[in-house]
Amino acid sequence: MSKTDLRPALSRMLPYTPGEQPPPGKFIKLNTNESPYPPPQEVIRAIQDAATGPLNRYPDPTARSFRNEASRVLGLPSPDWILAGNGSDEILTILVRGFVGEGQKLRLPYPSYILYRTLADIQGARWEQTPFLDGWHLPTMFGQGDADLRLVLLPNPNSPSGTIVPKDEIAKLAESLPCPLVVDEAYADFAGDNCLDLVRSHDNILVTRTLSKSYALAGIRFGFLVGSPAILGKLGNIKDSYNCDYLATVAATAAIGAQDWLRETVETMNQTRARMETRLAELGFNVTPSKANFVWCTHPSGEHEAMHQFLKKNQVLVRYMNFPDWGDGLRISVGTDQQVDACLMLLERYLS
Amino acid sequence: MSKTDLRPALSRMLPYTPGEQPPPGKFIKLNTNESPYPPPQEVIRAIQDAATGPLNRYPDPTARSFRNEASRVLGLPSPDWILAGNGSDEILTILVRGFVGEGQKLRLPYPSYILYRTLADIQGARWEQTPFLDGWHLPTMFGQGDADLRLVLLPNPNSPSGTIVPKDEIAKLAESLPCPLVVDEAYADFAGDNCLDLVRSHDNILVTRTLSKSYALAGIRFGFLVGSPAILGKLGNIKDSYNCDYLATVAATAAIGAQDWLRETVETMNQTRARMETRLAELGFNVTPSKANFVWCTHPSGEHEAMHQFLKKNQVLVRYMNFPDWGDGLRISVGTDQQVDACLMLLERYLS
Repeated sequence: MSKTDLRPALSRMLPYTPGEQPPPGKFIKLNTNESPYPPPQEVIRAIQDAATGPLNRYPDPTARSFRNEASRVLGLPSPDWILAGNGSDEILTILVRGFVGEGQKLRLPYPSYILYRTLADIQGARWEQTPFLDGWHLPTMFGQGDADLRLVLLPNPNSPSGTIVPKDEIAKLAESLPCPLVVDEAYADFAGDNCLDLVRSHDNILVTRTLSKSYALAGIRFGFLVGSPAILGKLGNIKDSYNCDYLATVAATAAIGAQDWLRETVETMNQTRARMETRLAELGFNVTPSKANFVWCTHPSGEHEAMHQFLKKNQVLVRYMNFPDWGDGLRISVGTDQQVDACLMLLERYLS
Repeated sequence: MSKTDLRPALSRMLPYTPGEQPPPGKFIKLNTNESPYPPPQEVIRAIQDAATGPLNRYPDPTARSFRNEASRVLGLPSPDWILAGNGSDEILTILVRGFVGEGQKLRLPYPSYILYRTLADIQGARWEQTPFLDGWHLPTMFGQGDADLRLVLLPNPNSPSGTIVPKDEIAKLAESLPCPLVVDEAYADFAGDNCLDLVRSHDNILVTRTLSKSYALAGIRFGFLVGSPAILGKLGNIKDSYNCDYLATVAATAAIGAQDWLRETVETMNQTRARMETRLAELGFNVTPSKANFVWCTHPSGEHEAMHQFLKKNQVLVRYMNFPDWGDGLRISVGTDQQVDACLMLLERYLS
C-alpha cells in the first residue's frame, strides 16, 4: 500500500461518464437533455446586477431568497420544506451520504440513471437494480426490503425511457419500503404531474429537482430537495456550509419566479417532442412515448451505434446508450424544431 | 429505528457552525475573514459578459479555462496538477471521502480549523487533534502514524493563530507520515510564502487554495487542489461531474489572472494588519504575529466574550472563539483601515 492510495472501495469503482461536452458551437447537442433555449431574460438581468453585488462576502448558507420564492411557487407550507444545493447532483450525494453507510444498500430501477450506482460505489455501499416490467411498471419487490436497504431512488420521469410510474404506485412503494424513497423529478416539468403532494402525506418520500433542464440553467448548477423539515434539517448538517453560489442563487431565484416563461417553453418543447415521436415512428423506430425532454428509440436494424457515429460525423450529438442484459438504443434530447429537423433528416438519410 | 433515520454516525455528530452572516449593510463584518474590498474589475466584467453566455449548457466538467490560467500563474508543470471545486470546502470533502474510510482516522493540529472534525464525523471516521507546542511549532508525533491514519490536515497559515509552520518542517512531516498531508493554504497569499514547490518534490503533499479570501470572491464558491496528476485523476472520479458553475469558473479565471491587483490588495491589507497588531498591543492585548488576513488576540482581563458582545451591540462583528482545554480569544479579520479603526476605537472605549 502506498502513502497516497485512495480508499480500497474507490480503486474498484467505475467512474460515471457524463455525456460528451464539446466546445460550444461545433455540434447540435441533443445528448445531455439541456434546454435548447436561453433562460428567461429576468435571469440574465439578475446576474448582471448581481455582478456588482457583495461577491467578496460569503453567500447565504441556506439560499433563503430562493427557498422563499420556490416554496411560494410550488405551494409548499414553508421554505423549510426545501434544501438547496449545487445542482441536484450534490443533493443526490447528500442523500446517499446521509442515509447509506459503508456496506449498506441502495436500490434503483433498471435501466435508469446509472449515476446512482457511482454514488453508492463512492460511499462504499452496495447497489441493487430492479428491472422494470413490460410497460415500464415496477414489480412489487421494488417496494420491499430488509434493514440493509437504506435508500431507494426512482427517476420519474425515468431516463432513458422518459416514462413515469403513476403516483398511486409511488405512494404504495413508499408505504411498504423500510427507508426513504427519493423521487428524482429532474424532468417533471415536462410531465404535467409530479409527486410534491406525496411529500406532505408520506414523510419517507423526498423529491429532487434541478434548474438544469426545464429552466435552461445547466451552467449555473442549482438543484433542490423537497422533504419534511425534520429530515431536511438533519441533511443540512452534512452539506458544505456555503454550498450555493451567490450568483447561482440569484439566478435560480429569478428563474423559479418566471412561471409564465416556464409554461410557454415547456409547451413548445412538448410540441417538438410530439413531432419527433411521430417522425421517428415513420422512419421505422420503436418510440417509447415520453414525458420528458428527450425521446428513447430503438430501430429494428439494431444499428444504433452506427447511427450515433453517422450523426456525430455530421455534427449532431445524440446519446448512444447500451444497458447490459437489456439492450441499446438512442436517447435524443428535444432541441429546437430546427435542431430536431436536422437530426431527423440525417437519420432518414442514414436509413435510405 | 424509523424509516427516515440518518446513518447512526450522523445522529451523534456536532454540525459545523460557520461565522454569523447577517443581512448586508448592518454590520462591519470582521468575523469570517472575507476581503473588505470588491474583486478586480475584470471579474465583474467577465461575469456580466458571461450572463449572456451558454447558461443552458452544462459547464466544462474540469474547469479547463481556469486550470490553464492558474497553472501558468502558479508555475505548475501543467493544468493536470489542479483539481477545481465548489469552494475549497468541497475540495476538503473530496479529500476526506477519497482517503478516509469509516472507522479510519484523520489528524489535525489544535487549535485549528474545526471543520475538519465535522468532515471526519460525516464520513463516520475518527479524528485526532495534536496540540501545537509553544511558539506554534508542531511536535514530532504530528508526523507519525499507523495504518489507520489516512489523512493529515494542516492549515498554513493556521486559523485562529495566523501562524505558519516552516516549509522544511512540513517536508519532514510528509516524509515520516504514512498518508497524504494536506496543506490548507486558504490564507497563503497573505504570508509571502507557500508550499507549492513541495507538491512537486513530495507526492503525498497536497495543497488546497480558495478564491474566497485574497481574491475577494467568497460569494462565488471556487477553490482548488494542487497535487500530482496521478492522485488528482483518481480524486476527480469522486467529485460531482459538473461541480464548478459556469459563472464561477469564468469569474475565477479572470481573478487568477489579475496578479497585479492581488499584489496591491495584499500589500494594503498587510499594512492594515500591521497597524492592527500595533494598536491592539498598545491596548494591552497579547497579539500573535499574523501571516494571514486576521489577527488572534487575547486580553489579560479575559473578557473576550463581553468584548465580542460590546462590539456586536455597536455593529462590529468579530469572531469570539473558545477552544476547550486551550483558551479563548478574539479573531479579528483585516478590514479596510476605516473598518479596523472603528473596531479599535470601540475596544479602546470598552477598556477605558
